[in-house]
Amino acid sequence: LVSVLSSAIIVYRLPWTWKCSKLLMKFIHAGLNTIAMILAIVSMVAVFEFHNARNIPNMYSLHSWIGLTAVVFYSLQLFLGFAVFLLPFAPVPLRAALMPIHVYSGLTIFATVIATALMGITEKLIFSLKNPAYSTSPPEATFVNCLGLLLVIFGVLILWMASRSHWKRPPEDNAKVLRPIGGTPEGTEAESTMTDGSNADKSDLRINSEAARKQNLKLDEAGQRSTM
Amino acid sequence: LVSVLSSAIIVYRLPWTWKCSKLLMKFIHAGLNTIAMILAIVSMVAVFEFHNARNIPNMYSLHSWIGLTAVVFYSLQLFLGFAVFLLPFAPVPLRAALMPIHVYSGLTIFATVIATALMGITEKLIFSLKNPAYSTSPPEATFVNCLGLLLVIFGVLILWMASRSHWKRPPEDNAKVLRPIGGTPEGTEAESTMTDGSNADKSDLRINSEAARKQNLKLDEAGQRSTM
Repeated sequence: LVSVLSSAIIVYRLPWTWKCSKLLMKFIHAGLNTIAMILAIVSMVAVFEFHNARNIPNMYSLHSWIGLTAVVFYSLQLFLGFAVFLLPFAPVPLRAALMPIHVYSGLTIFATVIATALMGITEKLIFSLKNPAYSTSPPEATFVNCLGLLLVIFGVLILWMASRSHWKRPPEDNAKVLRPIGGTPEGTEAESTMTDGSNADKSDLRINSEAARKQNLKLDEAGQRSTM
Repeated sequence: LVSVLSSAIIVYRLPWTWKCSKLLMKFIHAGLNTIAMILAIVSMVAVFEFHNARNIPNMYSLHSWIGLTAVVFYSLQLFLGFAVFLLPFAPVPLRAALMPIHVYSGLTIFATVIATALMGITEKLIFSLKNPAYSTSPPEATFVNCLGLLLVIFGVLILWMASRSHWKRPPEDNAKVLRPIGGTPEGTEAESTMTDGSNADKSDLRINSEAARKQNLKLDEAGQRSTM
């Protein structure tokens, strides 16, 4: 789950994908997140069935509370992302306004999922290791603690990659230069310029007037804002 | 501890402090972090003494591993921050290069501390609530779960405030305008322009040449990079 989530997050940060169309990348991002959502639902059903089979109460722990909250926000994020950024109906200002929130809540949900996993590991180690107990540090405990630590390191690296603006997909205008002049602009082009707030900031480099430069600065600010 | 940490993080984001000198704000940021470090050390000593008094082994849980890792990185962060950004010896390019790392590792340590607290709460509830057990959801369990959930919400809000570039302290140049022309520039001025990567991006608005505009764009990018 965490690995699918993280690949969905960094899919725009892979330089070898910058040649691909923005729409294709959006489909991959949405598809990976849909797979992660399905995995999350399957594992939650498994947990409830396991609890019911063993007569363990459901939803009593902090792990379950925060985990369920994360899944609720994740489904909201998925639904809104689909409706606003993938379907072609949302107007450009709405996309631009929602993008920083979409990015921040995506990264926050990712971090919360890791925190939930750490709580789940803690619970599981306490409940499962009885003889020898968790507190006597048997090899299993040390091994799983190492996995937990690796999970934190992994999360820190993914969030670093996702929050560096120079690893961002460059503006679509670069791609335009490579296409024959006068070629039919794809319908997705205009829209994707705005979904990523900073896409516009280098497009007007040739215009030298005071107004255009001020405009540039404004768009830069918008770009900074969407940079998590 | 979490509240002192978070106030240290958002101290540059309070609009009513933007009148104060950058050096004063740095001292407040460093001072609050020093207080948080002292609290962290005191509470760690208390935990070890509690464990030893009750013959509970130390450092066996994932909570303790990740917590200690966070404290080690926090002390490193404090030492480096003091040496590079507070003392006047570090050259400007070093400050500019380290600032994004300082910001990201600060926010990451904050998030890790919250995750550690959540694991600690989970452990404590399992160990302390025996009769009635944690799994039967006694009022104490529900109450402490709510506290844990509030801790997550609090962390999400603080990280949102810290990562929005329009809540950043504005460039020092605004302050310069308010001071008499030809007044002795404070030694901290030149340095603080660089510690916050985006401070320079609006200072050359009057210069209209191609070179200056390119320079501006470069500095903007640096600013974006330091925006978490």
